[in-house]
Amino acid sequence: MAAMLVAGSLHAEDVKKTLTQPEANYQAGSSPIGESPMHQSVNPKAPPMTQAEFDLGRKIYFERCAGCHGVLRKGATGKPLTPDLTVGKGTDYLKVFINYGSPAGMPNWGTSGELNDQEVDLMARYIQHEPPIPPEYSLADMKSTWKVIVPPEKRPTKKMNNYNISNIFSTTLRDAGEIALIDGDSKEIISILKTGYAVHISRMSASGRYLFVIGRDAKVNMIDLWMEKPDTVAEIRTGLEARSVESSKFKGYEDKYVIAGTYWPPQFVIMDGDTLEPLKIVSTRGNVVGTQEYHPEPRVASIVGSHFKPEFVVNVKETGKTLMVDYSDLKALKMTEIGSAPFLHDGGLDSSKRYFMVAANNSNKISVIDLKTDKLAALIDVGKIPHPGRGANFIHPKFGPVWSTGHLGDETISLIGTDPVKHPKNAWKVVQTLTGQGGGALFIKSHPKSNHLYSDTPLNPDPKISQSVAVYDINNLAKGYTVLPIAEWADIKDDGAKRVVQPEFNKAGDEVWFSVWSAKDKISAMVVVDDKTLKLKAVIKDPRLITPTGHFNVNNTQNDVY
Amino acid sequence: MAAMLVAGSLHAEDVKKTLTQPEANYQAGSSPIGESPMHQSVNPKAPPMTQAEFDLGRKIYFERCAGCHGVLRKGATGKPLTPDLTVGKGTDYLKVFINYGSPAGMPNWGTSGELNDQEVDLMARYIQHEPPIPPEYSLADMKSTWKVIVPPEKRPTKKMNNYNISNIFSTTLRDAGEIALIDGDSKEIISILKTGYAVHISRMSASGRYLFVIGRDAKVNMIDLWMEKPDTVAEIRTGLEARSVESSKFKGYEDKYVIAGTYWPPQFVIMDGDTLEPLKIVSTRGNVVGTQEYHPEPRVASIVGSHFKPEFVVNVKETGKTLMVDYSDLKALKMTEIGSAPFLHDGGLDSSKRYFMVAANNSNKISVIDLKTDKLAALIDVGKIPHPGRGANFIHPKFGPVWSTGHLGDETISLIGTDPVKHPKNAWKVVQTLTGQGGGALFIKSHPKSNHLYSDTPLNPDPKISQSVAVYDINNLAKGYTVLPIAEWADIKDDGAKRVVQPEFNKAGDEVWFSVWSAKDKISAMVVVDDKTLKLKAVIKDPRLITPTGHFNVNNTQNDVY
Repeated sequence: MAAMLVAGSLHAEDVKKTLTQPEANYQAGSSPIGESPMHQSVNPKAPPMTQAEFDLGRKIYFERCAGCHGVLRKGATGKPLTPDLTVGKGTDYLKVFINYGSPAGMPNWGTSGELNDQEVDLMARYIQHEPPIPPEYSLADMKSTWKVIVPPEKRPTKKMNNYNISNIFSTTLRDAGEIALIDGDSKEIISILKTGYAVHISRMSASGRYLFVIGRDAKVNMIDLWMEKPDTVAEIRTGLEARSVESSKFKGYEDKYVIAGTYWPPQFVIMDGDTLEPLKIVSTRGNVVGTQEYHPEPRVASIVGSHFKPEFVVNVKETGKTLMVDYSDLKALKMTEIGSAPFLHDGGLDSSKRYFMVAANNSNKISVIDLKTDKLAALIDVGKIPHPGRGANFIHPKFGPVWSTGHLGDETISLIGTDPVKHPKNAWKVVQTLTGQGGGALFIKSHPKSNHLYSDTPLNPDPKISQSVAVYDINNLAKGYTVLPIAEWADIKDDGAKRVVQPEFNKAGDEVWFSVWSAKDKISAMVVVDDKTLKLKAVIKDPRLITPTGHFNVNNTQNDVY
Repeated sequence: MAAMLVAGSLHAEDVKKTLTQPEANYQAGSSPIGESPMHQSVNPKAPPMTQAEFDLGRKIYFERCAGCHGVLRKGATGKPLTPDLTVGKGTDYLKVFINYGSPAGMPNWGTSGELNDQEVDLMARYIQHEPPIPPEYSLADMKSTWKVIVPPEKRPTKKMNNYNISNIFSTTLRDAGEIALIDGDSKEIISILKTGYAVHISRMSASGRYLFVIGRDAKVNMIDLWMEKPDTVAEIRTGLEARSVESSKFKGYEDKYVIAGTYWPPQFVIMDGDTLEPLKIVSTRGNVVGTQEYHPEPRVASIVGSHFKPEFVVNVKETGKTLMVDYSDLKALKMTEIGSAPFLHDGGLDSSKRYFMVAANNSNKISVIDLKTDKLAALIDVGKIPHPGRGANFIHPKFGPVWSTGHLGDETISLIGTDPVKHPKNAWKVVQTLTGQGGGALFIKSHPKSNHLYSDTPLNPDPKISQSVAVYDINNLAKGYTVLPIAEWADIKDDGAKRVVQPEFNKAGDEVWFSVWSAKDKISAMVVVDDKTLKLKAVIKDPRLITPTGHFNVNNTQNDVY
């Protein structure tokens, strides 16, 4: 039966055909990488599977498992799952693990009901076979998906609408493959736009005119906020799986280039800032910091545009390296490689914008990258599996400017001093550790105008904790936190499990917005809190708000205010 | 039968074991990469092979075929040979090709007697199977082979011998896995040193004290010429297959770093210049210039140390990219990537040392890399498959400073103007094309003190041409060439096929040395010609001179005089 699973039956051309027909891949709720046939090889020591079973396993693997374990199963946030390790464990052992999960972070796919018994059994067999290798994605592949819907010369020459565009929120509607543009002043939905699947982030061009979103399927939409009704003016598929997009922000290069980083293939592409024309692809395959072993799948995590140099700061997960990509000459591309620790994930700038603070999540460290000198400024021990989002900057009454992160793996919040000039003793040290509601934190947020620090905990197993947020008074941190029952405030009358995710300030810094994220067939909402009083200010409920997750205020994203 | 060829029977640990036992791999006359078991996968459409046949095929492939076709058979100087292409051709067709060769450059392995009928048949079947992928080579792998035989503190503090070391020649004894150090003044052999297999080049440290040689098996020997009897003071294996080694030459970094570039894995390593301790490995896997398609095997070809910046100029064959590797801070390694054309191979500096001229051999072009600006200065069409070695610089009576290259694929010699300041009209143009004896040229050479230009043709099928060299009078190039019957002058009384290879000047620039390269069991020699009179000056014959090929004068190599 294993003989059914041979490379000969899968052709590179079929793969390309599938991949270059974007429409087929934009079905909401699925990962296109799992739908693509791929090269694979047999493992006669693994339990047999039919081709249909293997195909289903591949689809489930890419939707559920690849994020943590990697496409090639070399391990990252999750453990390695290559056949040399899995075959020895055996199907029964693996089934228990998939069914019940583990305290180390493996979800309980079976008992949570997300996979049924047959699927658990199938996945236990699937991971004993060699991982199929997805195809590459070249310039020609990208170009075949590239569409300029409104060419630059046909776009408005001034703002054509009456929206206060710097206070618009771009909200991911995860399972719908859409984003909602919400007017931050009126709280009305301006538009719902079709995008890639499960948009991971929204980023603004330096000028504040263009909004870029990237789906997990690596589709980038470029949205012109000057149009009478803001809409997509260009789009492109940049790979098979992605998490990051950013725009050039250095003086003289405003709105000039856009970069997208992909998980698969492990590479990034620099595009024209007016049209998304792909210009330069750079592979991130290389050697891991420390052991310097070659890694076949170093995925591009967070990217930020430097304000100090014409550079993108590209963080590569598996190698633990930050690449300072100089975009001033794409024909002689200069890149500085700064090694710190694996696995680099998310992060943000300090308040001076000189330092990029990035979570090396499985090393339980924050790496500090100096964007002025292009060197590692510090590597700081924090709590277990830091997940800052972009982190939160505020002036600590005792320690001066700090940047903070919550953690997926414990209940702490680490405050790190970020001012080596005026507070040198505190710089790059954890000056204070706060205790939060629990582990499972994803985002932490403050604002220069606010005296509060907000920390969500959407991945905490306790619904009370995942449906509320902790708020700290920056001027009285010792007092502990206040709990805001955000999901309760949303007042949703159905039985859907809800998670409260991502505090995001409005432009003025006097409102904090939250997503109340329920299942695709349940009611979700956005909840707006008055930052001064910590009282409910508004609830946005609309049947079109399907599975809202990440959301980004235009001004705060454009200017790196967080 | 195909079922015998499955990945499960070959274990990564066995591979590492083989590879980290250097002694087993240093047998002269074989390529260690072919002796290593490797991961492989079956192809049921390919004709069956036993494991023993497959193993022999792998060994022959790496010794005979990989250089041109690539380890992964994606093609380079030779055509791609992946199963999607070869299976359709069929065994009989492939046998004809292997047996008789082709006018495009495929050698006639069968009719030349280098492979017998059984081997031709076996190779025709072998290349219809999936190419086995050799293992990676990490820092730990390198360190396990690293030996400091004489630590820096135990080495002499001044020159301890009476040799005129700047006129020593380092001569590769190809099939013996040795080099000969020959006193250029007395023409006596100073020493025969054990090295890697088929040493590809010799390079000098900036100070002129240390000689570095690298074998095809990626073994580097560091030889101290100050010792009473010059000998290896450190050695290391840097990969499985290699061609290039170089030392840092920028002011302030003399003798500080050594770099080795490997064919497999496709990467380079920067080492400590005193001990060869491996410090930094950088993968060269990436995207090909132009199409920007990912290539899994971009091999490192020539490397030169810049005199303008603290940089190594690393030429990557398959991607057609030159990497300017800034070694001033290995913790924040800066690299500038300059794309020109595939497949970058060999090259040398112009007489000002500002420009690196490198052959993009299958594009029939010379790329000019500006080491001052780190940009591509020009891309110049030349003859068919240029092979300059390091090329030859001289002052053309009409066109000013030129750099020249011969060709593997035709009989021409291209002279390129290299002085954009005083001769701007001629700069980066082929100012004159000379006609040589025929195709199959490997090396061309002149010297600032010489009025002659020498061109060898060792790969020409006509023995008369491969056993002699053409010499041009620089001041009367129109006159054509004089033929020097070098092999005849060697006066070797046996029936071995001889090839005359690599003109190399002595330090004074008044002698030219040639290798007369015969088979391993035949007599070879070195022939020394008086550059003024073009008469025979000396023949060096010694039973220890087994298969001499490349040879390098210390002064001319140290100072890039060619």
